[in-house]
Amino acid sequence: MKIKPLGDRVVLKAAEAEEKTASGIILTGAAKEKPQFAEVVAVGSGVVDGKEIKMEVSVGDKVIYSKYAGTEVKLGDEEYIVIKQEDVVGVLVD
Amino acid sequence: MKIKPLGDRVVLKAAEAEEKTASGIILTGAAKEKPQFAEVVAVGSGVVDGKEIKMEVSVGDKVIYSKYAGTEVKLGDEEYIVIKQEDVVGVLVD
Amino acid sequence: MKIKPLGDRVVLKAAEAEEKTASGIILTGAAKEKPQFAEVVAVGSGVVDGKEIKMEVSVGDKVIYSKYAGTEVKLGDEEYIVIKQEDVVGVLVD
Amino acid sequence: MKIKPLGDRVVLKAAEAEEKTASGIILTGAAKEKPQFAEVVAVGSGVVDGKEIKMEVSVGDKVIYSKYAGTEVKLGDEEYIVIKQEDVVGVLVD
Amino acid sequence: MKIKPLGDRVVLKAAEAEEKTASGIILTGAAKEKPQFAEVVAVGSGVVDGKEIKMEVSVGDKVIYSKYAGTEVKLGDEEYIVIKQEDVVGVLVD
Amino acid sequence: MKIKPLGDRVVLKAAEAEEKTASGIILTGAAKEKPQFAEVVAVGSGVVDGKEIKMEVSVGDKVIYSKYAGTEVKLGDEEYIVIKQEDVVGVLVD
Amino acid sequence: MKIKPLGDRVVLKAAEAEEKTASGIILTGAAKEKPQFAEVVAVGSGVVDGKEIKMEVSVGDKVIYSKYAGTEVKLGDEEYIVIKQEDVVGVLVD
Repeated sequence: MKIKPLGDRVVLKAAEAEEKTASGIILTGAAKEKPQFAEVVAVGSGVVDGKEIKMEVSVGDKVIYSKYAGTEVKLGDEEYIVIKQEDVVGVLVD
Repeated sequence: MKIKPLGDRVVLKAAEAEEKTASGIILTGAAKEKPQFAEVVAVGSGVVDGKEIKMEVSVGDKVIYSKYAGTEVKLGDEEYIVIKQEDVVGVLVD
Repeated sequence: MKIKPLGDRVVLKAAEAEEKTASGIILTGAAKEKPQFAEVVAVGSGVVDGKEIKMEVSVGDKVIYSKYAGTEVKLGDEEYIVIKQEDVVGVLVD
Repeated sequence: MKIKPLGDRVVLKAAEAEEKTASGIILTGAAKEKPQFAEVVAVGSGVVDGKEIKMEVSVGDKVIYSKYAGTEVKLGDEEYIVIKQEDVVGVLVD
Repeated sequence: MKIKPLGDRVVLKAAEAEEKTASGIILTGAAKEKPQFAEVVAVGSGVVDGKEIKMEVSVGDKVIYSKYAGTEVKLGDEEYIVIKQEDVVGVLVD
Repeated sequence: MKIKPLGDRVVLKAAEAEEKTASGIILTGAAKEKPQFAEVVAVGSGVVDGKEIKMEVSVGDKVIYSKYAGTEVKLGDEEYIVIKQEDVVGVLVD
Repeated sequence: MKIKPLGDRVVLKAAEAEEKTASGIILTGAAKEKPQFAEVVAVGSGVVDGKEIKMEVSVGDKVIYSKYAGTEVKLGDEEYIVIKQEDVVGVLVD
């Protein structure tokens, strides 16, 4: 069972607060704040009221998102964030 | 007696806070928060001021909705949420 | 003497907090909240700044409305709510 | 000396908190709130930034207005409310 | 030295809280509130981002303005209010 | 080193709280408030998202600005305000 | 690993609170406030919902930004701000 996001939303799976990447860099959320790194696990159609918004993020992208946005959801043991693409501020690239 | 939602609204029946699905996954709302899972029981026409908004959810869909939105209504013994489709953030799919 | 609502407003007469319908279902507002059920007693022209908004509710409809909206008015012994149609979230139907 | 309202505003003269109409009905504002009944004493041109807004109320109309809107003015011994027409929610009719 | 208001703004010189007009009527601001009567001393061009807004008030007009709007300025011994025309709610006329 | 303002912004250098002009008038900010007089030291291009906004103030103008707007910046020993032109309410002229 | 900003956002690396420039001027943020000077390290495509916004800042620019805007991110040992270009108020130029 999975979450299919509506419109221009994406589903994010929160990354661990501290995580070592392939290149050896350690990702951490700002101290004493909830982590802002997450992995995209589903992308909406981008259609909002008949107008199509280009979805720029893809499943598997590591992204940074605005911590004041989105709806937190717990499904089984996993925690997800369903968030509008406009509140995803950037993508981590090599 | 039923609620017919106006415009781009849908009527949701709050799902139990903990519920086992066919696939055996347990759905739970975030701890100490009101459950965010619900089942769509009625869908509005989608017409708002003469402009038609495509209704993407259907009766029977299990959905996740923004907990800060919608109007709670008690009709008989059941509790419902009447909410704009834009505040339904995702649909649960197999 | 009656209230003629302006623009896209309707006049509602608050239903009793508990009321048995023809089909025997008891309508109640959410506990400890003011009742959200009301009967439409007058409907505005729907014209707002020269643009016509389709009025979807009719006199006699039992409706559910957003409890944070509208202007409460006492005329004689009766209490009314004058409210924009967009704050009427649904209609009760058999 | 009178107040000429600008744009889509009207000037209201607050009606007494309790007033008997020709048909014998007593008008009262909601208890412990300021009265919401008033009489229209002047109507603006309706022109706002070159766009004409249809003025639907006329001098002499008894109206109900939103109590959180408008500018209160004391001119001589009389108190007036200068208010945008959109904040006049209804007209009292026989 | 004078203030030239920009765009759709006007400069007002606050009138005395109590002032006898030619017709003998005494103008007063609402008790315990700052006076809302003022005289227009300068009128902007009305051009806002290339769009021209019709300036309906003229130098010398006695006006009523919204007390929550505008920027108060002290120039020499005089106090002025620089305010957008939309926050001038009415003009005093004979 | 100087600040080049972006879009429809201007850079202001706060004028002294009390300053004697050529004509002998003393400029003062309202008592116990920060001074609202400033001199324009740089003007942006006026281009905002491809649309050109006419810049009506020029370098050297003495202006009055809304005290709740703008970003204060200290560069070397000087304090500046970078502010959108729409928050400059007027220009001082002889 | 780097941050690729989405849409009309830029990534800033906060400059030291006190920093001597080539011309010998010392840059400081306002006392007791977080520094507002930063260096642009990445610039987004400028495309927002299919509309292209001209990006006026370039990698390497020293900029001033609104301190109430943007998302702070810590990546490895460095702190970054991901911010919409409209919240960058100016560029430091020689």
